[in-house]
Amino acid sequence: MEEHGALQNIVILDLTRVLCGPYCSSLLADMGAEVIKIENPDCGDDTRAFAPFRNGESMYFANLNRNKKGITLNLKSTEGKEMFFKLVSEVDVVMENFRPGVMDKLGLGYEVLKGVNDQIIYAAASGFGSYGPYSNRPGYDILSQAMGGLMSVTGWPDGPPTRAGNGMGDILAGMYLAIGILAAINSRNINGKGQRVDIALADSIVATLGVEAQRYFSTGIVPERLGNRYAPLAPYDSFKAKDGYFIIACGNQRLYKDFCYEVIRRPELWEDERFHEQTDRVKNQAVLKEIIEEWAADYTIEEAVDLVMAGGVPSGPILNLQQISQNEHIVGVREMFIDVEHPVIGPMTVGGNPIKMMSTMPKVRTPAPMLGQHNEEVYLRLLGIGSEMVEALHDRGVI
Amino acid sequence: MEEHGALQNIVILDLTRVLCGPYCSSLLADMGAEVIKIENPDCGDDTRAFAPFRNGESMYFANLNRNKKGITLNLKSTEGKEMFFKLVSEVDVVMENFRPGVMDKLGLGYEVLKGVNDQIIYAAASGFGSYGPYSNRPGYDILSQAMGGLMSVTGWPDGPPTRAGNGMGDILAGMYLAIGILAAINSRNINGKGQRVDIALADSIVATLGVEAQRYFSTGIVPERLGNRYAPLAPYDSFKAKDGYFIIACGNQRLYKDFCYEVIRRPELWEDERFHEQTDRVKNQAVLKEIIEEWAADYTIEEAVDLVMAGGVPSGPILNLQQISQNEHIVGVREMFIDVEHPVIGPMTVGGNPIKMMSTMPKVRTPAPMLGQHNEEVYLRLLGIGSEMVEALHDRGVI
Repeated sequence: MEEHGALQNIVILDLTRVLCGPYCSSLLADMGAEVIKIENPDCGDDTRAFAPFRNGESMYFANLNRNKKGITLNLKSTEGKEMFFKLVSEVDVVMENFRPGVMDKLGLGYEVLKGVNDQIIYAAASGFGSYGPYSNRPGYDILSQAMGGLMSVTGWPDGPPTRAGNGMGDILAGMYLAIGILAAINSRNINGKGQRVDIALADSIVATLGVEAQRYFSTGIVPERLGNRYAPLAPYDSFKAKDGYFIIACGNQRLYKDFCYEVIRRPELWEDERFHEQTDRVKNQAVLKEIIEEWAADYTIEEAVDLVMAGGVPSGPILNLQQISQNEHIVGVREMFIDVEHPVIGPMTVGGNPIKMMSTMPKVRTPAPMLGQHNEEVYLRLLGIGSEMVEALHDRGVI
Repeated sequence: MEEHGALQNIVILDLTRVLCGPYCSSLLADMGAEVIKIENPDCGDDTRAFAPFRNGESMYFANLNRNKKGITLNLKSTEGKEMFFKLVSEVDVVMENFRPGVMDKLGLGYEVLKGVNDQIIYAAASGFGSYGPYSNRPGYDILSQAMGGLMSVTGWPDGPPTRAGNGMGDILAGMYLAIGILAAINSRNINGKGQRVDIALADSIVATLGVEAQRYFSTGIVPERLGNRYAPLAPYDSFKAKDGYFIIACGNQRLYKDFCYEVIRRPELWEDERFHEQTDRVKNQAVLKEIIEEWAADYTIEEAVDLVMAGGVPSGPILNLQQISQNEHIVGVREMFIDVEHPVIGPMTVGGNPIKMMSTMPKVRTPAPMLGQHNEEVYLRLLGIGSEMVEALHDRGVI
């Protein structure tokens, strides 16, 4: 028996490509929404051509598009547009992440779709959003990290501004898009109307910097790059052991006291007026770091972490993706990587879903679709188009 | 007339403290949910004591807790527990971000609350989640960034692993918690049952590294720190101008061609076999970067960005929080910072909400509550307790 999916009553037409939109729709698909990914018949989502590949298929694409159905549709053709309108009248959500204005130029903008189905939720993500003076600027992740402020506070005091080493702007925007879609569904339950949701990558980055912004608003001092330390707390940083770096996080007075008495076993560091209060430790964090690293130099990362944790103080290693992929907790129990069988790639590992809903657990049920794989099924069910007609539409380049 | 809020039918009991949970509930409150923040009567949320302060009030707290109602309740007292159960029977969601097990020890765990109200959605965030071998480890943001893999890929090839310069693990977990809550509300509309949602900061970080993980799974090569460049594309990086760094993002062949012909005006760089294909440019990105920085050395950031954009190539400055707070697009139009009047702090600026719902726009309606500010209102409305009784409960330390 198929388990109940939290979003099993939601059907989504997904026009998104690359990372941001497909990440959003993968979250929703994992929770049971029916995501119908619409690709152009020629080559589909750009990421079908993104490395890494196995057996000629993109693992980038296969990871982000699991659990989705794939259909093709040429949105530039008159027949294709008509079919799209009919699909829109049958579903709950339309998602896209074109540059603002592209859907309007195609004659498929929100106002038109609303005329077709006034309950439709139209959810779009772009670099800077669909309104405002920057709205036509192209939206690449690195630009959002740069112009949204994250790079200005990431990195080292003597080094350049640094981006988070993943597509954080894309991911965050995809997550806000998911929140917006689900909130719009709730709103529609109240008043029976759909609406438009508009997410910008740049806004999404800015929205994560509230704590840092308050420091600026309060003091007028622009937050700078601090490396791994944290402005209000010390020791709360990375420290060097014999074979690399590890973390100690003394979030409060008690933990620092425990660190002095139970870990490093130097009670005088607790009494020391340079370090006694949190504000003193922050002011003198460089000296304190030197003392801690002198101690840690005798131990491997694993030994140091064990010693710190044994004293009741929060600590941990800095894991890379290899170590994480073998981690008993993160993968073994929390299932943050999952093995699936892809029809062409073969056995592969995809990302797990972090939203652990204990009665309707998100699941990876199906691998990513081949281009147009679900044309017959979806066009028959939603538009009543038989397989001969599907073939004819395909031959004419409509699907 | 009060505008319709997307979540105006949702009432949340919010036991969360510090950053992760309060960030989640601020997103939901901005969209119209009634968030009743429950604080201990002694001193409330830890962040009421977090800098920066103005007029003795924490701006950290005031930023994250706008739009919420504040009540006090002593969950260790028998009377307090009874009142809590009655509140639970009146609301949709209970949120907490204690260390796993704390609510159970208080006798207020999910199974107990479900007995009181089987429609309740119980949403919790913690460092490593409520199950698995690490579940009892303390959860600080820096540990999630370290153990979730983000630090291993952030920073410079010759430098140490680096954390994103904000509480990214807390923020991401708060966002996944919001998605989980909204999905659980939808699920409850299907089957009439609440459920438990369990989010881990570490899972939340891992979930953002899917693209990087695929590179590892495909090649067995552990992704390393690349500074600001990007493994599959070049030039897509920060570059040094006369007065600092700026971004060029050539996402495809056409943009690189435009860069050579229209920006730097050196067509030979397009023909050059070291740079002609994307893979060549990635391999020789260091040489190409040198050439670009020689060109950029003659210009200020502003001049360089203008020149690159004039050639049709994506570019932008690296803005700090001061610059962002004055930016016409991000603040003036997208309203990512908003001025509010706090009764004690006075005029202050809080973060805007990036989820632009065009018919039910998220709004900052009220400043953060003073400790226990809404005791009379909430206890009267939900529990029928009059003001004399509220006073007596307060005197006895129950609220």
